[in-house]
Amino acid sequence: MTSFIVKNECGASRTGILHTRHGEIETPCFMPVGTLATVKTLSPSELEDIGAKIILSNTYHLYLRPGLKIIEGAGGLHRFMNWKGSILTDSGGFQVFSMNALRKITGQGVEFTSHLDGSKHFFTPEKVVEIQSVFGSDIMMVLDECVPYPVEREYARSSLILTAEWAKKSKVFYELCTKKYSDIGMLFGIIQGSVYEDLRKESAVRTLEIGFDGYALGGLSVGEPNELMYDVIFGTLQHLPVNKPRYLMGVGTPEDLWECVERGIDMFDCVLPSRNARNGQAFTSAGKINLKNACFKTDYSPIDSSCDCYACRNFTRAYISHLFRCNEILGLRLNTLHNLNFMVKLSKRIRDSIANGNFFQEKKKFFEIYRR
Amino acid sequence: MTSFIVKNECGASRTGILHTRHGEIETPCFMPVGTLATVKTLSPSELEDIGAKIILSNTYHLYLRPGLKIIEGAGGLHRFMNWKGSILTDSGGFQVFSMNALRKITGQGVEFTSHLDGSKHFFTPEKVVEIQSVFGSDIMMVLDECVPYPVEREYARSSLILTAEWAKKSKVFYELCTKKYSDIGMLFGIIQGSVYEDLRKESAVRTLEIGFDGYALGGLSVGEPNELMYDVIFGTLQHLPVNKPRYLMGVGTPEDLWECVERGIDMFDCVLPSRNARNGQAFTSAGKINLKNACFKTDYSPIDSSCDCYACRNFTRAYISHLFRCNEILGLRLNTLHNLNFMVKLSKRIRDSIANGNFFQEKKKFFEIYRR
Repeated sequence: MTSFIVKNECGASRTGILHTRHGEIETPCFMPVGTLATVKTLSPSELEDIGAKIILSNTYHLYLRPGLKIIEGAGGLHRFMNWKGSILTDSGGFQVFSMNALRKITGQGVEFTSHLDGSKHFFTPEKVVEIQSVFGSDIMMVLDECVPYPVEREYARSSLILTAEWAKKSKVFYELCTKKYSDIGMLFGIIQGSVYEDLRKESAVRTLEIGFDGYALGGLSVGEPNELMYDVIFGTLQHLPVNKPRYLMGVGTPEDLWECVERGIDMFDCVLPSRNARNGQAFTSAGKINLKNACFKTDYSPIDSSCDCYACRNFTRAYISHLFRCNEILGLRLNTLHNLNFMVKLSKRIRDSIANGNFFQEKKKFFEIYRR
Repeated sequence: MTSFIVKNECGASRTGILHTRHGEIETPCFMPVGTLATVKTLSPSELEDIGAKIILSNTYHLYLRPGLKIIEGAGGLHRFMNWKGSILTDSGGFQVFSMNALRKITGQGVEFTSHLDGSKHFFTPEKVVEIQSVFGSDIMMVLDECVPYPVEREYARSSLILTAEWAKKSKVFYELCTKKYSDIGMLFGIIQGSVYEDLRKESAVRTLEIGFDGYALGGLSVGEPNELMYDVIFGTLQHLPVNKPRYLMGVGTPEDLWECVERGIDMFDCVLPSRNARNGQAFTSAGKINLKNACFKTDYSPIDSSCDCYACRNFTRAYISHLFRCNEILGLRLNTLHNLNFMVKLSKRIRDSIANGNFFQEKKKFFEIYRR
C-alpha cells in the first residue's frame, strides 16, 4: 500500500520517495510544523505554493483541542484543516513528558494533566494509535517516553525498554486497526536511548524486532551539544535497514539538514524556522539575519535576493521590518513563508546534490556562503 | 487628469466611476483600512482577489512610523507596500485630535505629541499636503479639526471656520505642489459642523468656495445616534454638487452602506469589518455571528454559504472557530478576508441595484434577511 524507495545514494546520504495516501514525498524532506492543525500564520494554499508535500501535526494538542470528536465529525484532520498533502502526527509523547510535571507512567501508559484546564487524561499506546487513525494521519507515531538531557544511563535504559514495550502494543493494536480502517496510514517506531551509543543500539534492535514502516530518532536536540547529536545519529543509523525511511524528530536548522542527511536521515521537522520567523529571524543564503535590526529600516532589497517566494518577489526588508516594528501580522506571515520556503527549497537542493553525486561539494559551497 | 463621472441614479443614490492614477474605482465603494501601510492580516494579492480597488492609509501614523524618508526612499507608499491599486490617505487630523490630549491648535496648525514616544510634532495644512504628495497618495485629505460628540455649538462653529481656513491653505499649497509633482493625486476637502444642520451647511459652503476634487463628511460616527447621523448626511448632501464624489469618513456597517448610499454617499471606509473580524465577528447574509460562540464548534458549514471568498470556499465555521479558540493567526486572516470581501461585494450589489433601478427593493430584501 504505502512504501518507501531509495533512489540515489551518495555516501550515507540518500534520496528516496515515500508514498502515502496523499501523494509522493521526495526525501530528504523538511516537514513544516502545524501543531494545532495550522502551520502558524499560513494558509494551506501558501504551503502548497512553496512546495510542501507533508506537514506535521500533534496528537496531544489536537486531542485536547479541538478534541477527537470535532475532527472526526469533519471527516478527519485533512478535511478539518483542508490540507490536501500528507500529514504526519506526532504521538504526543514528547508533549506529555515536556509539558507535564505531574505525569504518572505505568506499563499501561501515562496519566497527564491538560496544560489548558488541568483535566486528567490517560494515554495508552493503543489509544494514541486509535486517535491518529481517526485523524486519518498518513504517518502515525507510536507513544514513546522522551527523556531529557542529560539523563542517567539507568533511567535511559529502563525508559527505552518501556518505549519498546509500548511500541509492541502499538504494533499489535495497529494490526487490528488495519482491519477496521481500510485505508490506514503508516506507523513509525521511535528509537530512544539518550546519548548512550549502546542504548541507542539496544533501542534500535528492540524496535526493529517489532517492525515498522519507518524509524524515528527521538530524544535528540533536547539540549545536548550538536556534535554529540551528530555522533548519536551516525551511530544509531548503522543499525537501521536502508529500505525504511529514517525520521529525525524535532530537528533542525539549515546546518542540521546538511549534517544529518550526510549521516543518512530522510525526514525532518522543526518549529524553529517558523517560530524564529515570528521573532524576525530570516534565513538567507548568506546566513541568518534579524529583520528587527535597525540596519534594515532602509534596506530596499528582498529578504534574500536569490529566493523565489512571494515575500521576496514582492516586498523589501525595509517594508517587512516596518511591519515587525508595528507588530503587524503580515510581517509574521511573510517571514514565515520565506523561512519555510527556504527549508523546503534547501531540501530540494540537498536531494539534487545527492542525485548528481556532488553532495559534498554542494555542502561545502553552502557553508562557505552561509557562515560568512 | 483625474475625474469622477456619475453613471446611474436611483433617488439620491448614484453609481459613478472615479479615475485615479492607479485605475478606475466604481462607486459606491468601501475602502479597506490599512492604517500602517498594511490592511491588517492580509496581503496585497488577497485584497486584489476580493476585488478591492482602493485602500485607505493614514498620514499621522505613517509620518510617525516608518517616517516620511523611508517611504520616500521606497519610491512612495504604493511601492513601499507593493499595492497596485489606489490609495486614499487620511490627513491625520482625526488621529491628532482623538489620540492627543495635549495638542495645541493655532491658526498655523496643530502641535501634538507622538503616541509612540512622546516626541513633539507640528502639522500645518501645508505640511500634511506635502507629506501625502511624497507618499504619492491618489486621494489626499486636507488637515481638519474633528470635534467630538456631543460638542457645543459655539465650539463646533469656530472649529469649522478653522477647518475652512486650513482647507484654503491646503488648496493654495496643493496648487504649488501640482508644479513640483507632475503626477499628483486629488485633494478632497472635509466638511465639519458636528450635528448642527446650519453649521454643516456653512461648512459645505465654505469648503465648496475653495473647490476640491471631492468632498468628505468628517466628524460623524463619533458617538451620535445612527438616525441623527443619517439626518446630518441627508442635510449636508443637499449642499454638495452632484458631479463630485462624496466620501463619508469612518463609516460604517453593512446597514450604514445601504442607508448612506440612499442619501447620496459614494465612498466609505471603516475599521469595523476588519477589527471586528479579529474579534471573531463575521458578517453573513443572515446577519452577524461570532465564531467564538460554542455553537460553531461542530458547525461544518462555511461562514456564509452564499459567499465566494477563499475562507468560505475552503474552511468550516468549526475549523475557524477552533483557530480562534487557539489564538491562531490563520483565524484572524480568514475572517478578515471574509468580512472585507463581504463589504466589497455588498458595495457591488448596491451599485448593481442602482444601475438596475431597484435599489429600494434590494435594500428591503437585504434587511429582511440580514436582520432576522
